[in-house]
Amino acid sequence: MIGDAFGEREIISRISEILGGVVNDDCAVIDAGEKYLVVTTDMLHSKTDFPDIMNPWQIGWMAVAVNLSDIAAMGAQPAGVLIAAGLPPQADLYFIDELFSGLADCAAYYSTAIIGGDTDRHDELTVTGTALGFVEKDLVLRRRGAKPGDLLCTTGALGGAGGGLWAWQHEVKSDLITKLLEPEPRLEEGRALARSRAVTAMMDNSDGLALSLSDLAQCSQVGFLVQEEALPVAAGLVEMVGKDKALEMVMGAGGDFELVFTVRPEGLEAARRACDLTVIGEVVAEGIWMEREGERRQVEARGYEHRIGGMD
Amino acid sequence: MIGDAFGEREIISRISEILGGVVNDDCAVIDAGEKYLVVTTDMLHSKTDFPDIMNPWQIGWMAVAVNLSDIAAMGAQPAGVLIAAGLPPQADLYFIDELFSGLADCAAYYSTAIIGGDTDRHDELTVTGTALGFVEKDLVLRRRGAKPGDLLCTTGALGGAGGGLWAWQHEVKSDLITKLLEPEPRLEEGRALARSRAVTAMMDNSDGLALSLSDLAQCSQVGFLVQEEALPVAAGLVEMVGKDKALEMVMGAGGDFELVFTVRPEGLEAARRACDLTVIGEVVAEGIWMEREGERRQVEARGYEHRIGGMD
Repeated sequence: MIGDAFGEREIISRISEILGGVVNDDCAVIDAGEKYLVVTTDMLHSKTDFPDIMNPWQIGWMAVAVNLSDIAAMGAQPAGVLIAAGLPPQADLYFIDELFSGLADCAAYYSTAIIGGDTDRHDELTVTGTALGFVEKDLVLRRRGAKPGDLLCTTGALGGAGGGLWAWQHEVKSDLITKLLEPEPRLEEGRALARSRAVTAMMDNSDGLALSLSDLAQCSQVGFLVQEEALPVAAGLVEMVGKDKALEMVMGAGGDFELVFTVRPEGLEAARRACDLTVIGEVVAEGIWMEREGERRQVEARGYEHRIGGMD
Repeated sequence: MIGDAFGEREIISRISEILGGVVNDDCAVIDAGEKYLVVTTDMLHSKTDFPDIMNPWQIGWMAVAVNLSDIAAMGAQPAGVLIAAGLPPQADLYFIDELFSGLADCAAYYSTAIIGGDTDRHDELTVTGTALGFVEKDLVLRRRGAKPGDLLCTTGALGGAGGGLWAWQHEVKSDLITKLLEPEPRLEEGRALARSRAVTAMMDNSDGLALSLSDLAQCSQVGFLVQEEALPVAAGLVEMVGKDKALEMVMGAGGDFELVFTVRPEGLEAARRACDLTVIGEVVAEGIWMEREGERRQVEARGYEHRIGGMD
């Protein structure tokens, strides 16, 4: 049984072996002549991905946003989104209108469009998005490329989506709930960072910071030292859940859709001109470490690992 | 309720309106500089798409084949396939190995590969494939473009998959069962037809000939006159189910994955050099007609319409 007798990561590596090795990146990369085409697909469905609180418009928004976040992580410009939607029997016209409006609105917000797809009936609402993008060959950003001495950075604030989930579950009113339900992928920041030529590796933190660091470390064959005090914790989170729980959410909760990236030390100013960022640590030779008041402890690669395949 | 109070076609046109108009073609077409990128996505799941008789390898093969057939229909060369797989709890390692081997084998058979994807748990086995391809801008084939006087043609034989389903349901031994379970999309034929420059419109017949003709007619703003005696019925089908039932399967059963296309009369020799084809009728001004011994009757756009969206 999946994730039972066998770990999820074991399944992924088995699948990757059968497929002849799939590059571990936010998107697959295809040579399209002058540029690279980057492409990603994510299957979302009710039980795992859509909390009851979500309205159909938000479900649509989310299905596009999660895929565009992968485009952002490559430094690419979106070129279109396809949607395969399995609609449950209880979906009425209101639901369909709202769902597809959410899909279209998110795409339009990021200057792209839903350009095709497939619609079918399905017992459980299931939406598979596929996003495409183009990026100049010398600007593409991958999970590999980080070097010891590079600075570890993130866009935005962390833990907000985790806090939103907590607030909803505990019936607490919080702006973080909107952050959870209507994520805003960092497309502009991703492009600007790529153009800055200061970034050495990048990915999104959609499954939490710890898993992102684990993936970046594995792909780049490096380690990380994170400064706990430097972490930009989402506004109001510590007040709501306390410092320890907030840190747990920063590291382990999914849904933030920020960009986590490494910057050559001499490129920091260029990266800062590209977008608002926070330096949260540095690249080291091996291991993933958190430093707090001068003490280091090892970070486990926990995180929002409901996905068996982290192929993207 | 979908397909209940509202027809499937009504839902599609509503969705298309919300999305701001999606071109009705086998693939979405994106400008990729020198060439067009074509891309398609299809969600398949147990209840609707995988007869109990299918083994996991065949499920994998099918999930790639249906998408590559859309690439073939545009005259394009495949450039990669992404797979988002929702695996049910009962999927064991044997199942996963076979499923992903089927995916990889079908891609490799057509000189392409699985280049990325997403894996998740799902109560019902759900596999969404996305196929990408490139085609020279002056060679791309669409559903629009057919002109009255053009010849209507098909690759291969028709009704075989429908016959395979019938044979399985009636416990009759037949080679057509393999045709149903392991479809072979016409990629080589699609490329050769595109290069022949003789073809004016093309699509695959994955939902049956009648629906293909209906779509081609709508997109090209034309009609068709089909010669019943000219239809290349799959070998052994008439013997197995009788002439009337065989014709019904040719027109209405899904799963054949042949190419249906129109050819300029002066281009017929070039098209014949490109691949084996059968002329089954001609393009007329309007209506879809079947001629049998000089008598014409109108053809309804029935077919394997389980898909709500025929966006591809």
